[in-house]
Amino acid sequence: MSDGTLTFDGIAYPDGVASDPRHLGWMEGTPPPPGREVRFADDRFLDFPQIRWTLSHMRELVPTVNVWRGPGPASPFPDALQQDAIDRLAFTDMHGRERRWDASLPDTYTDGIVVLHRGRRIYERYFGALQPHLPHSCFSITKSYAATLCATLVHEGVLDAQQRIPHWLPEMKGTAYEDATLRQVMDMQIGVAYSELYSDPKAHIWDYARAGGLRPRPEGYAGPGSFYDYLQTLRPEGRHGEAFAYKTVNTELMAWVMKRVCGVPLAQMLSDHLWSPLGCEQDGYLTVDPVGVPMGGGGLHASLRDLARFGELMRRGGDWNGRQLVPEAVVADIRRGSDPAKFAKAGYTLLPGYSYRSMWWVSHNELDAFEGRGIHGQRLYVAPRAEMVVARFASHPVAASAANDPITLPALLALGRLLRDG
Amino acid sequence: MSDGTLTFDGIAYPDGVASDPRHLGWMEGTPPPPGREVRFADDRFLDFPQIRWTLSHMRELVPTVNVWRGPGPASPFPDALQQDAIDRLAFTDMHGRERRWDASLPDTYTDGIVVLHRGRRIYERYFGALQPHLPHSCFSITKSYAATLCATLVHEGVLDAQQRIPHWLPEMKGTAYEDATLRQVMDMQIGVAYSELYSDPKAHIWDYARAGGLRPRPEGYAGPGSFYDYLQTLRPEGRHGEAFAYKTVNTELMAWVMKRVCGVPLAQMLSDHLWSPLGCEQDGYLTVDPVGVPMGGGGLHASLRDLARFGELMRRGGDWNGRQLVPEAVVADIRRGSDPAKFAKAGYTLLPGYSYRSMWWVSHNELDAFEGRGIHGQRLYVAPRAEMVVARFASHPVAASAANDPITLPALLALGRLLRDG
Repeated sequence: MSDGTLTFDGIAYPDGVASDPRHLGWMEGTPPPPGREVRFADDRFLDFPQIRWTLSHMRELVPTVNVWRGPGPASPFPDALQQDAIDRLAFTDMHGRERRWDASLPDTYTDGIVVLHRGRRIYERYFGALQPHLPHSCFSITKSYAATLCATLVHEGVLDAQQRIPHWLPEMKGTAYEDATLRQVMDMQIGVAYSELYSDPKAHIWDYARAGGLRPRPEGYAGPGSFYDYLQTLRPEGRHGEAFAYKTVNTELMAWVMKRVCGVPLAQMLSDHLWSPLGCEQDGYLTVDPVGVPMGGGGLHASLRDLARFGELMRRGGDWNGRQLVPEAVVADIRRGSDPAKFAKAGYTLLPGYSYRSMWWVSHNELDAFEGRGIHGQRLYVAPRAEMVVARFASHPVAASAANDPITLPALLALGRLLRDG
Repeated sequence: MSDGTLTFDGIAYPDGVASDPRHLGWMEGTPPPPGREVRFADDRFLDFPQIRWTLSHMRELVPTVNVWRGPGPASPFPDALQQDAIDRLAFTDMHGRERRWDASLPDTYTDGIVVLHRGRRIYERYFGALQPHLPHSCFSITKSYAATLCATLVHEGVLDAQQRIPHWLPEMKGTAYEDATLRQVMDMQIGVAYSELYSDPKAHIWDYARAGGLRPRPEGYAGPGSFYDYLQTLRPEGRHGEAFAYKTVNTELMAWVMKRVCGVPLAQMLSDHLWSPLGCEQDGYLTVDPVGVPMGGGGLHASLRDLARFGELMRRGGDWNGRQLVPEAVVADIRRGSDPAKFAKAGYTLLPGYSYRSMWWVSHNELDAFEGRGIHGQRLYVAPRAEMVVARFASHPVAASAANDPITLPALLALGRLLRDG
């Protein structure tokens, strides 16, 4: 356990317990007192510790569209809770420090975590502002959802992954994507002048967010008015197909292709193909831009158990109680990953041997794990060889997963080994 | 049936069929073409015909908070559909014109309508942008929900309706409400300088909406930043307790008192006391202001059937399958109404003999009907002597109910008589 503070990049933050938004009184009171209000307009709603409230309440700050769970009952998760045994699990983090599972949760600013083993729920905890029925930001796990649907459309022949983007979106001629194939977009091997260093306030990701209305715009703002407008400003930098380069705009573009071809909004596609047939417990939602386009690159919010249901579907090769919701070949292709050599060029030193396929991070580790990963600690860890799925929401002060991977990855590997060998 | 246009106050509008937002292609396309986009920022999202899309999609434009339906199954409505018989129902509107029920629906810009008789669903239709699972704006039917909860708190002794507002909200000393009792607020007998003429762009209702972030603010806006801030600007005009004067700010103030005393957000109170125990089918939602305060005066959105469930609860005197969700005395007090003489002073010529009690419109007619009423055609009509409940959503071009009452009230009375005598 920490002494109440944790240090990242030389900055000390209150740990998960000390920054509990209920304890601090964020958005409590009638009205909340100054200094405890979370507002969209002051552009601090993703700052720490406000973010600890925000990620469980995003739709109270920005426009959203529902992902309907459908009319049926929720699918049951058989319970086989082993909370105490898992809490006691010991592992060594990447810094060489011995830790216990339970003590690692506040140190990763966990808002909620659920573990499935062979489809049974063996562990589940909630902290801070999250409750079982509240959707929480998935951030870039959104990409894994969207690209799984896109890969399904490719498998079905609706989309040809070898086509270039202007085939569907003539608007993108003259941009970085003029000569990019859909497959290169799906695997994020695009040469585009666009930066996503979250710690840099001038990174392009913030221009993109402002275009989409997800950060406040300064008075007199004259930039792009929507996600689609923003995408058309992107210029080439480097060559496609040579290296993994993680850029959220690729997913946004992919989602645009899907919508253009199918005519079905992403929220409805998620509802029809996943939320409803999976028997999700709660409606999910997507943040939308000023013309109603959902943020395919990071706007999805789901309840923790519903995120776990998606992971379990992937663990089962796309089969859900006899119904093939995602083609088995699509899941197998994701699990196989892509070329680790192209991934290595991106310099993720904490992820040796990984590759990236259809917007999943593929570990190629002993558990054959593949991951959905989102900033500030969102994680969907599917470990077929351990028959394990872990869904975790968090509100870590640091956006980059590199801030929690040193604890998270060893913890998940240790748990997977326990379940595999146990 | 109209010839495709309808005229109100000298302005011709396409009728309900001709203004169908799907037919017109509002928000269709990837992206929607210019002229078919509904945007918050241009302040035209409540204009006609955009409003025909907006009222089924409000949360895609503004921040909202969920009203959770709870973990249980939806309560069933036994079906006993008599669609054809009701469609053929003939009645004479207030202008003396003979009409048929089915033809009156596009002339009232109906988005959806459901009729319950003895708790069975005998009629249900959807039009335009509405679908059974989509929440639609209730507008001021929100008031009936909120005040029914408030009257329950009074019944339980949590609130004393004879107390003056500053007893709970010292912030309101020096305002119009300094010497107003909670009961006067609940019955809208408040002397306050505040106008709610929707057709007047300078009416105070728009200042209130801008304070709450529900209309765009001009650049450099320096007005009140929230609903609560706005309420504190209200000054007296006339005396309390003498006449009915319909002003949405009264409800907002009432909701503030409820929150201050109970500490429970309105969304949760609605979930705990109504949505969850009623077995609502869908989550509802409330629009929220920039500090997360829900618009108690008009921000509720519900699915049509869930609105009907609330009406049915009131028809049954607050009992829901053996569980008393609202005290019988509260429902009886609403049904009895208040003083029609005070109501008459407000000059609603289409509503002779009405009174207003706990934010319900009480007809004192032969059906003992009482109504929740919201701008642009929202209606919850509870007719105990006909054992009938009608829930209707609409997106009428004219805000004031006076534009649809000449058709709506005779239609509902005719249907109630048919069911009572049938």
